Amino acid sequence: MKKYLAEFLGTYALVFAGTGAIVIDQQTHGSITHAGVAITFGLIVMSMIYTFGDISGAHLNPAVSIAFTVAGKFPVRELIPFILSQLLGALFASLTLKLLFPSNQYLGSTLPAGSDMQSFILEFILTFFLMLVVINVAKGSKEQGMFAGLAIGSVVALEAMFAGPVCGASMNPARSFAPAIVSGHTAHLWIYLVATVFGAVSAIPVWKLLNSPAQP
Amino acid sequence: MKKYLAEFLGTYALVFAGTGAIVIDQQTHGSITHAGVAITFGLIVMSMIYTFGDISGAHLNPAVSIAFTVAGKFPVRELIPFILSQLLGALFASLTLKLLFPSNQYLGSTLPAGSDMQSFILEFILTFFLMLVVINVAKGSKEQGMFAGLAIGSVVALEAMFAGPVCGASMNPARSFAPAIVSGHTAHLWIYLVATVFGAVSAIPVWKLLNSPAQP
Amino acid sequence: MKKYLAEFLGTYALVFAGTGAIVIDQQTHGSITHAGVAITFGLIVMSMIYTFGDISGAHLNPAVSIAFTVAGKFPVRELIPFILSQLLGALFASLTLKLLFPSNQYLGSTLPAGSDMQSFILEFILTFFLMLVVINVAKGSKEQGMFAGLAIGSVVALEAMFAGPVCGASMNPARSFAPAIVSGHTAHLWIYLVATVFGAVSAIPVWKLLNSPAQP
Amino acid sequence: MKKYLAEFLGTYALVFAGTGAIVIDQQTHGSITHAGVAITFGLIVMSMIYTFGDISGAHLNPAVSIAFTVAGKFPVRELIPFILSQLLGALFASLTLKLLFPSNQYLGSTLPAGSDMQSFILEFILTFFLMLVVINVAKGSKEQGMFAGLAIGSVVALEAMFAGPVCGASMNPARSFAPAIVSGHTAHLWIYLVATVFGAVSAIPVWKLLNSPAQP
Repeated sequence: MKKYLAEFLGTYALVFAGTGAIVIDQQTHGSITHAGVAITFGLIVMSMIYTFGDISGAHLNPAVSIAFTVAGKFPVRELIPFILSQLLGALFASLTLKLLFPSNQYLGSTLPAGSDMQSFILEFILTFFLMLVVINVAKGSKEQGMFAGLAIGSVVALEAMFAGPVCGASMNPARSFAPAIVSGHTAHLWIYLVATVFGAVSAIPVWKLLNSPAQP
Repeated sequence: MKKYLAEFLGTYALVFAGTGAIVIDQQTHGSITHAGVAITFGLIVMSMIYTFGDISGAHLNPAVSIAFTVAGKFPVRELIPFILSQLLGALFASLTLKLLFPSNQYLGSTLPAGSDMQSFILEFILTFFLMLVVINVAKGSKEQGMFAGLAIGSVVALEAMFAGPVCGASMNPARSFAPAIVSGHTAHLWIYLVATVFGAVSAIPVWKLLNSPAQP
Repeated sequence: MKKYLAEFLGTYALVFAGTGAIVIDQQTHGSITHAGVAITFGLIVMSMIYTFGDISGAHLNPAVSIAFTVAGKFPVRELIPFILSQLLGALFASLTLKLLFPSNQYLGSTLPAGSDMQSFILEFILTFFLMLVVINVAKGSKEQGMFAGLAIGSVVALEAMFAGPVCGASMNPARSFAPAIVSGHTAHLWIYLVATVFGAVSAIPVWKLLNSPAQP
Repeated sequence: MKKYLAEFLGTYALVFAGTGAIVIDQQTHGSITHAGVAITFGLIVMSMIYTFGDISGAHLNPAVSIAFTVAGKFPVRELIPFILSQLLGALFASLTLKLLFPSNQYLGSTLPAGSDMQSFILEFILTFFLMLVVINVAKGSKEQGMFAGLAIGSVVALEAMFAGPVCGASMNPARSFAPAIVSGHTAHLWIYLVATVFGAVSAIPVWKLLNSPAQP
């Protein structure tokens, strides 16, 4: 139960701060700037990893939980409760933002600026590299583990920074699901549910190759 | 006595740099930008934790000291001296800024951009998560403790970044008290005294739940 | 083979994110800003070091591999495969960006804003200091090694920040080679191939001097 | 000799990158922004500490060397060679910038935006807190020492961020000396030589008080 509470709270914080930055940037005429939004996403992921990493592993992301399960590093029976906790946390965050900023239209939903295909490919690559970093630092050396929060938060910050203006840089089905459902803009949601999971799962065979024992 | 001096100096530095950034941004026509102000708040908290953490714990915040006391992790007899040291440090910082920038009107006071209720809810949530991070990393594993400055500074930076334009992102009664008193703008001060303490204290039962021993 | 895959993937990520930030900034009318581009370069290098450092050393840069070889810290027989892996990773990254943003003209190529000589000297100094940091933290004390990702990522971020507007702040032949070849703007490429290698190699005798055993 | 070379190179890098950011920002019509300049100063100090900390202590600042001597933590006979190495490194950096950007007027000199007294007080406070952080993390617990680069770089970044628009946020006599001499703008230089040394030295009795043994 403690793990599910940690995933609920961590994903709540991630979506509340991250999409909250987008909402408040819109409500206050660009006072936060795109760079400020990207830094918010990176720092909330980093601080939640240092806070909840010991309790639940701080996935905060259904694509990460699914990929860990595919890698054999996360028990199958925990997958559904983890994903539900993450989605619930994200939904409560979007509902809180709706309550606080009732006039905001999109609530920080991810929307493709160009074609669906362009955003699909970008989200696939973004989540592929996010998962490659996550699994290498989380399942690597002790030193890597200590810096996991810093490394993973940095990937989230930089990917949000450079790709955000085109695809929204979701990298996380829960982060896209909640604002789309609560604001009612679900037309492009499938991109962010499918591409992120595919991207994260695709990192697993690459990680296995990179960490296979040396041949004699 | 050394602890009180550390809290005095750390809170002085926090309020001098943080609200100083707001004051100088106003005096120099936005040269620092909102993102620069948020980064200043995060970095001063981080560096003060690495500097004074070993001496006083580097609370620098009455809401944090009260919540630690409620959690049974801080002696009750130290609470009043700690809060007085923090308030005094904050007051001296605002007085220094008044001396240096006599024409500045608000001295970096926190003021709600929208309704009082909106800022109250936001400050409650911000300080709830700040305290959840603080107590988990400060009272968690050795590794978490090493990265405490980074994790807590990051939360302060990101919460100031995304919520600053709406509620000021105080998260700290001393940080709001001093500029309000010295500049004479105390109408909304109650929000920042009440919501932050309630938010921080509310994190304690959640932290206990998250760290309760596993049931057989 | 695992090492080459790590260099390929790491350099792909570096060029995809870094030059991608420049491309997307142009495509979206400056939404990322120059500071956002510089932060992207720094964070991708930092996170790739924490991800691939244990596998290949995470050079991600032919100038760094050449300088390590000159220093006697990297086997000569690995040099060509490493450089090929890095160039191939960079080329695939530029090709992906070409696919995603077919209308972009330069694909993030480095181009001198002023004279060739000005950019040559700047790139020489930038890569000299980058290599001095790399070899001191990578071959220094255990503590330095733990913070290698942070220190090296910081140098890349700050050098991109202050020198980017003049010379592009390449510091890396692979990072300049790929967008120049794929976009067809190769007139100034020689600067970024020659100055960076000279700069990195020049750091080696200075490093030897700094770390020579004390004389009796 | 190795120590002097480390101080020379580290201070060269600090002044070349930091004042270079100011120069290039002016030459390119504000492309770096004030926040980018402040981040450059913080990151160069951080990375130089991780690079040269083991060799010379990475003072990079005459005020820091003087204050360490007053504290009894640095040998008096090393003080003059250290300061000369720092000044020489700074001068070579300003000369390189003069060579690269001959039309730039101030070369990043620190100049008071308001009254001399305002900048004097600010520089005193800035360097007081810088030195308090430096000596606490450098002479404190092992954990503090590991994070010294991060803590000290953060203080430099945040103080440059919030106070730069008023006083230039020198905190370092060498950083102000070199551009003033090379550009010929020495009218206000005394502020940055005197206030910084006074500020740093004033931190020593406070540090002694904070770290005195507990009374029985």
